Amino acid sequence: MKGICVVGYGYWGPKLVRNFAQIASNSVVAVCDESPARLASAQKDFPGLRVFASLTDVFHDPSIDAVALATPVSTHYPFARRALEAGRHVLVEKPLATSRREADALTALAARRRRVLMVDHTFVYHPAVRKIKALIEAGELGRLRYIDSTRINLGLFQHDVNVLWDLAVHDLSIVNFLTAERPLAVSAVAAAHTRGAPENIGFLVLRYASGLVVHVNCSWVSPVKIRHILIGGDRKMVLYNDLDGSEPVKVYDSGYRAHSDEERNRLLFDYRAGDVYSPKIPAQEALGAMAADFVRAIDTGKRPVSDGRFGAGIVAILEAAQRSIARRGKEVPVK
Amino acid sequence: MKGICVVGYGYWGPKLVRNFAQIASNSVVAVCDESPARLASAQKDFPGLRVFASLTDVFHDPSIDAVALATPVSTHYPFARRALEAGRHVLVEKPLATSRREADALTALAARRRRVLMVDHTFVYHPAVRKIKALIEAGELGRLRYIDSTRINLGLFQHDVNVLWDLAVHDLSIVNFLTAERPLAVSAVAAAHTRGAPENIGFLVLRYASGLVVHVNCSWVSPVKIRHILIGGDRKMVLYNDLDGSEPVKVYDSGYRAHSDEERNRLLFDYRAGDVYSPKIPAQEALGAMAADFVRAIDTGKRPVSDGRFGAGIVAILEAAQRSIARRGKEVPVK
Amino acid sequence: MKGICVVGYGYWGPKLVRNFAQIASNSVVAVCDESPARLASAQKDFPGLRVFASLTDVFHDPSIDAVALATPVSTHYPFARRALEAGRHVLVEKPLATSRREADALTALAARRRRVLMVDHTFVYHPAVRKIKALIEAGELGRLRYIDSTRINLGLFQHDVNVLWDLAVHDLSIVNFLTAERPLAVSAVAAAHTRGAPENIGFLVLRYASGLVVHVNCSWVSPVKIRHILIGGDRKMVLYNDLDGSEPVKVYDSGYRAHSDEERNRLLFDYRAGDVYSPKIPAQEALGAMAADFVRAIDTGKRPVSDGRFGAGIVAILEAAQRSIARRGKEVPVK
Amino acid sequence: MKGICVVGYGYWGPKLVRNFAQIASNSVVAVCDESPARLASAQKDFPGLRVFASLTDVFHDPSIDAVALATPVSTHYPFARRALEAGRHVLVEKPLATSRREADALTALAARRRRVLMVDHTFVYHPAVRKIKALIEAGELGRLRYIDSTRINLGLFQHDVNVLWDLAVHDLSIVNFLTAERPLAVSAVAAAHTRGAPENIGFLVLRYASGLVVHVNCSWVSPVKIRHILIGGDRKMVLYNDLDGSEPVKVYDSGYRAHSDEERNRLLFDYRAGDVYSPKIPAQEALGAMAADFVRAIDTGKRPVSDGRFGAGIVAILEAAQRSIARRGKEVPVK
Repeated sequence: MKGICVVGYGYWGPKLVRNFAQIASNSVVAVCDESPARLASAQKDFPGLRVFASLTDVFHDPSIDAVALATPVSTHYPFARRALEAGRHVLVEKPLATSRREADALTALAARRRRVLMVDHTFVYHPAVRKIKALIEAGELGRLRYIDSTRINLGLFQHDVNVLWDLAVHDLSIVNFLTAERPLAVSAVAAAHTRGAPENIGFLVLRYASGLVVHVNCSWVSPVKIRHILIGGDRKMVLYNDLDGSEPVKVYDSGYRAHSDEERNRLLFDYRAGDVYSPKIPAQEALGAMAADFVRAIDTGKRPVSDGRFGAGIVAILEAAQRSIARRGKEVPVK
Repeated sequence: MKGICVVGYGYWGPKLVRNFAQIASNSVVAVCDESPARLASAQKDFPGLRVFASLTDVFHDPSIDAVALATPVSTHYPFARRALEAGRHVLVEKPLATSRREADALTALAARRRRVLMVDHTFVYHPAVRKIKALIEAGELGRLRYIDSTRINLGLFQHDVNVLWDLAVHDLSIVNFLTAERPLAVSAVAAAHTRGAPENIGFLVLRYASGLVVHVNCSWVSPVKIRHILIGGDRKMVLYNDLDGSEPVKVYDSGYRAHSDEERNRLLFDYRAGDVYSPKIPAQEALGAMAADFVRAIDTGKRPVSDGRFGAGIVAILEAAQRSIARRGKEVPVK
Repeated sequence: MKGICVVGYGYWGPKLVRNFAQIASNSVVAVCDESPARLASAQKDFPGLRVFASLTDVFHDPSIDAVALATPVSTHYPFARRALEAGRHVLVEKPLATSRREADALTALAARRRRVLMVDHTFVYHPAVRKIKALIEAGELGRLRYIDSTRINLGLFQHDVNVLWDLAVHDLSIVNFLTAERPLAVSAVAAAHTRGAPENIGFLVLRYASGLVVHVNCSWVSPVKIRHILIGGDRKMVLYNDLDGSEPVKVYDSGYRAHSDEERNRLLFDYRAGDVYSPKIPAQEALGAMAADFVRAIDTGKRPVSDGRFGAGIVAILEAAQRSIARRGKEVPVK
Repeated sequence: MKGICVVGYGYWGPKLVRNFAQIASNSVVAVCDESPARLASAQKDFPGLRVFASLTDVFHDPSIDAVALATPVSTHYPFARRALEAGRHVLVEKPLATSRREADALTALAARRRRVLMVDHTFVYHPAVRKIKALIEAGELGRLRYIDSTRINLGLFQHDVNVLWDLAVHDLSIVNFLTAERPLAVSAVAAAHTRGAPENIGFLVLRYASGLVVHVNCSWVSPVKIRHILIGGDRKMVLYNDLDGSEPVKVYDSGYRAHSDEERNRLLFDYRAGDVYSPKIPAQEALGAMAADFVRAIDTGKRPVSDGRFGAGIVAILEAAQRSIARRGKEVPVK
């Protein structure tokens, strides 16, 4: 990678600049934003940073061979398309696009132009999620039976996307990373408590051919912050608590077995089937690992983990969920 | 009340005997069970206890004017019907029956015979739930926008009912107790991980005319025990954590308001909108309060909180949820 | 054991009666109390229970060959002495006596009369404490370096003993059970916040020849209840949290090793040296195991774990701590 | 303030540079370190930063009128003395010096030279600590009876100071900030588990004329990180849990009152005397507030909160504690 330009210097942009500056210390790192105030802020944060006032200027600069789009979701498709057509590698903030059709078009375009198209699904690079995937691949959990995620907090009401596109997108990326299987169908319900605003609370359930069931509960209007994911296999189960700094991953014996009546009373008082074990998770910034995967993909041609096809799979679920919401929970196939 | 006979001496029966013995110390307390071993066990637990080997014997004894049915759900309707026809007051373990039709028939029969028909929805008598109801009625929470309950643990796989009838029944009783409004429709999904067994994991969403949305997540196959209910109003929100012995109820400022961009970053780091307050909850056994309400209803004619009509409302939701499960989440009206 | 009489039917007495009734179902279980109201209460709790209005009556009844003293601490010595002289086996609530001299006299008397003398140090029979002892004996923790206990809550201000004799007595029994070594000396400080009342907050430190250091913090005036014991070995460390129903015992890698400067920053963010493991602790009532040990000692002659000598060792520490408090923390040898 | 030079660019230095750069954006911010590697690292972190290779160079530069010493404790006295003699304002990392005599000499020197001498006791500027002080000053807690702090984690074994000088220094600064009273005497015990190394675990108790008692438990060898401070008044009590991001400060009703026997059982099950309340704590970086107080003191002459005299009071307690440790807990007066 010769140089990267982070497009959009709002909440997420500064984090991307900082990570690319650390990871690709020999490359140009630049920022593009329409707002002169935000460009000034970027230069104060990072003295010596190159700035661009328009995407057109970026695409005229041959030292910039990659862009990272940290702009509103509705701009992802047009901006990424322009960048790919201008021969640039593209990193897009999650979600990749607003529809499966757009996502597929970008993936096809990137293939034709032989450019890297990647989505910043940061959780896929989180060391705790990677540890859980390793446990699953080693067979420690057995066959997966359910994944149940709660991702609720007191957050900003987004103006352009609802809570599923903002929060459940994280869970869906984790689910699609952990499992090889893809869902057949989704049932979703959501509610908006401000007239005309996007839904601020939402629930979705995914159905799979294997019997696996995935449930996601997400909300911007919870007074407490919870980020729990339960992953239930028939041998072991995992609790991933993203807010537990010391024991984010706990591994439990599974309770899937025949219970006699005598076992009932014991379990009712025990709550536990066996030992619990909390593996050490290396302290490592997920965003840095994501940025490194993008740079490596450009430099070596190695496919990044959350490439365009991966991102398109998540958009497909979100789009189907949106249709299910409009039908008050009626199951909609995921194509 | 002259005397009460607890029918069924399994897991719950002994608790009922102990509570009635304490509350109605001048009344006869008896046990009926088909199993001689369980009757012997009852007499060992409570020396001097009267026992019956059959319901017929109970109904021949004029000193027993009330029965409490702690028997499998499928027996609730036939046993309660026989008891009411024999002129006895009836307390039924939750749920009241397996269908709205049965529940209504029992309610009508009790009215004709002028007998008390009550359902043991214990949580309705829990001091924490009563405190939350008082907060709602005092207007402290403002207009209710959502209720979100998670009731998961490692439990016994029931043989006759699924996890919604076993666990969500508690949440529905709390919801119908806290709110005056009744749901229009339910969307539910559930999964059974043992072939031929009842569903062990289930999710349901209730829709209301006011815009209120209720979500319930329940499971017998979670490695951790969680009993969280979030009650979100537009002024305040409540977290009811049934497993927190010292602060089961916490009251938070609501986050329902317009957010500026500057507020976003602050909230992202704060997680909190204002002060938090945890009211003192009196230490009082819910089951004892329930038993006392039954005795009071018999002795004074005062309507019990969880009477037949209340219990029938919950059966109606469960029955509609069951139909929604069969249609993979399609919304079903609650009649 | 032919029969046991529980002397004193206050807070602890009913628990002893219940446990002995379950464990020694073929023995007589009786209660002795000066208060007719308490005797009536005992008979209501346990229909058919034999009661005695005086110790003299108890000692005249040949069917009672054992007594359990659940009376104020100041009575332990005179009552236990009378019981041993009357040829009875004796179980005494903790602590055994108010001084090492009294404790030794009782131990010697029991030996001469060939009767069982035992102290109810319940924690010694707790399955979590037993599990920790097994870990220590298996060498898993390595050499013990420190034990640090916090036992604080909002409790009753006792009238006859201070908070060390009431609460630290538990920690000292656990410490003396877990370690073969006995302390050389104690330094203690305590404070009474009500004029003329026993100290309600206290701290003690034990010094050992091996370098082991034991610290106990106990209080009746904490708004929160904490029962943490940290046991630090040079290989592993244990956190025993008596209030954590699901993971009371956690085993951690030890941090005892040379740290480089690079390790500093890592540890500051990690808080963790390696995996954590929480062994399954069997759900078993400690008081029942204690009662069973007493009955077994009478029936078989097997020495109970918390015999008179064990109890005397704890009284010796408490007595030395008392002297250290009077000298404002000056170290006092434990004899 | 014209310009400030941060002396020592190890663990804490970068934090000081970042804060002074933000707070005093019109002032020069420079770094002094003997190590060329660390100076290069500073310039990479902060492009354009001025650097000095020796203190002598700093004192020859008239644009630097203040220094911040982030160097080992043993250098605090000689470096601060040179800086004051060179007419510079001085901020010293905690603790101010290694003895009361040194601390007093620096305070007197600063007064004579009319320069600001301040110690970076960061916790004194923490919004949670400030909130607790406001509660105390408003009389909400009533008369203070005890402060009990636990500050334990898995930390670096310092080479030059023991755990009390490294960790308890924080608690002592909080205690001296919250209370107007100063301790009469200290009793302390500590243990070193590595031969020849400073003590890694330590306990101290402070005695006050009013009856207040302060207890501090600190350790570098705990497998879990705990930062609890209990502040007990006779009206209310506070739990300050520095690791609880959402409810760091909780206010409880006090349990200081006469207890009847009936209250005993209730309290044993309740654990709570009344409502609990957790005030909203503003999210504000303590280090920034500290840096701002230093700049304000230079610019306006306003006395900083943690000035030399404040810092000397804490050194006095630590020095007395050190003597008490050498005497195995014997109480030593704090002068």
